[in-house]
Amino acid sequence: MAIVIQSTRGAAAARLIALDWGTSSQRAWLLGDGGRILDGRRPEHGLLRTMADVDVTDAAARARACEAVFLEVCGDWLRAHPAIPSIACGMVGSAQGWWEAGYLTVPTDLDIEAGALTVVRHGQGELYIVPGLRLAPDLEHAIPGDVIRGEETQVIGALDLMPDSGRPRTVVLPGTHTKWLRIDNRKVNSFTTAMSGELYGLVTGHGILAYTATTAVRDDQAFARGLAAASTAPSRGLAAALFSARALALDGLLDPPSLPDYVSGVIIGDEVRHLLPEYTDRERIVLCGNADLCRRYASALDLHGVATEIVGEEITARGLWTVATTAGLVEPSPHDRGRTL
Amino acid sequence: MAIVIQSTRGAAAARLIALDWGTSSQRAWLLGDGGRILDGRRPEHGLLRTMADVDVTDAAARARACEAVFLEVCGDWLRAHPAIPSIACGMVGSAQGWWEAGYLTVPTDLDIEAGALTVVRHGQGELYIVPGLRLAPDLEHAIPGDVIRGEETQVIGALDLMPDSGRPRTVVLPGTHTKWLRIDNRKVNSFTTAMSGELYGLVTGHGILAYTATTAVRDDQAFARGLAAASTAPSRGLAAALFSARALALDGLLDPPSLPDYVSGVIIGDEVRHLLPEYTDRERIVLCGNADLCRRYASALDLHGVATEIVGEEITARGLWTVATTAGLVEPSPHDRGRTL
Repeated sequence: MAIVIQSTRGAAAARLIALDWGTSSQRAWLLGDGGRILDGRRPEHGLLRTMADVDVTDAAARARACEAVFLEVCGDWLRAHPAIPSIACGMVGSAQGWWEAGYLTVPTDLDIEAGALTVVRHGQGELYIVPGLRLAPDLEHAIPGDVIRGEETQVIGALDLMPDSGRPRTVVLPGTHTKWLRIDNRKVNSFTTAMSGELYGLVTGHGILAYTATTAVRDDQAFARGLAAASTAPSRGLAAALFSARALALDGLLDPPSLPDYVSGVIIGDEVRHLLPEYTDRERIVLCGNADLCRRYASALDLHGVATEIVGEEITARGLWTVATTAGLVEPSPHDRGRTL
Repeated sequence: MAIVIQSTRGAAAARLIALDWGTSSQRAWLLGDGGRILDGRRPEHGLLRTMADVDVTDAAARARACEAVFLEVCGDWLRAHPAIPSIACGMVGSAQGWWEAGYLTVPTDLDIEAGALTVVRHGQGELYIVPGLRLAPDLEHAIPGDVIRGEETQVIGALDLMPDSGRPRTVVLPGTHTKWLRIDNRKVNSFTTAMSGELYGLVTGHGILAYTATTAVRDDQAFARGLAAASTAPSRGLAAALFSARALALDGLLDPPSLPDYVSGVIIGDEVRHLLPEYTDRERIVLCGNADLCRRYASALDLHGVATEIVGEEITARGLWTVATTAGLVEPSPHDRGRTL
């Protein structure tokens, strides 16, 4: 499935402004009937940049900074379509964002009601912010909790595209902080976050391996080798598996430019082997996100005999449309119901 | 056991100049009969600093830089004791150091012969460099190799202090790159490196958790909690266990300043649980290195019912003395034989 981002003049049909506003990136869409994408933008306004010169302990200052960015990015849409509703998901709803939008505690279903959305005002109206998901800690068994913010909307979009098989299923969203969710009949039962993408960035960008791999090139074979090294039994743990990259380079068995892809294989392999037992499924696992990352997770899962299907990260627009219609911000167009993107 | 570093005038008894010259630190000792420490220095001349302004691809430039530092640090000892031999271990013998001193391939015994030492010349004589250890990769089974440089000398020193029980034993040297060695009758049979210390530095210094833990305080209880979280079965893998620190902080269950100690517990716990099965021993495991780090590993091993004994990192001076006497650089003093530090 491919979602084509179209720039059209179809002004009359615009129904919703939808934003995915994360820590390091931002996406904005103008959606028409049935959630059809009329226009799309990728402004360089992740929250880190938005807050670059802001005292983040000052809630009013944060709100002013977010409002200014929102109006800069979507102002022309707001002027062209007065009274159009706006909705956003992602870290914009965190305590470091525009306004803390709270969490739904799992188990929770994904048909989010209007009352669960948080409203912030801006110069030209209101913006609704989607809550994140929270897994409460189990203090008695010393099991920590977990949080999701933004990915819940991707999952909502992905579920719209998947026929309900009537059985629980697993959705994995690879990224800086990869999320694994267990979902049964549109209800999230549990989830786990692995900071694999962040570890990859730290190890290959700042650690001793960064000195070795000064010029990186893509090497799928090196990725496969790292994956195999981290997937073979018994596990020696991530810290030991990572050092093997250095040993291979010293032995001339791994070209330094291929080292980042080897490390990617090691980290993803270690994550998958450890989390899969908790998320095993006879159904295919749904991967949702960046195409290259999803391909890597699909390879890792394939090593364990698990089939996958991949949904692109643009599915967030679909998820925001679904949240907006469920909450009654926009009316679903009857003739567009059930239409897939 | 404590090694007291004494500054003495006992010039007549000086027998050996011994250096532990690593990537980020340097130790130099003037040793007397039986390896007794007559004088000790901790110059701020790790290799990274030594090579700060050097083109490290130029072997002659590297050698000049190392020679200058060596004469600056030990020149007065060399002048006061003409013809005194000098020996060094650590990354000074790597391809990025003074001169590549090669490796002994395991299995290998630790009675290193004179021919295995590498000699470099300096303005006032010669310096012998101890070889590292190398575990050859097993290409057939896609098992990577491993390398040690410097820790072999610590192990040699530690073994001098331990009665030979006639059975194999495990020595663990915690650090930036923690080493686990399996030793039988002074022979190293195998070893594994885990880059746990490096991961700790990256995660707490550069990652998202660094933003949370802006002011760190020591918190032994937080360490114990991290250790428990990473040691309980079944393992969810390091990438997921690390994210739990963020979730705990968001839930107000972990004070941000205590976060580094929690992360330390998670990383050490994950390393120990994964490597212990390969290094399990009915004997006590010997921990050798920084006292605080050894204490942390002892706690982690204790969770698995494994007893430990701790040897301080100053044991390197003892190891260098033993290498020098075994290789015939100095004569062991008969009346000092068997004397412990």
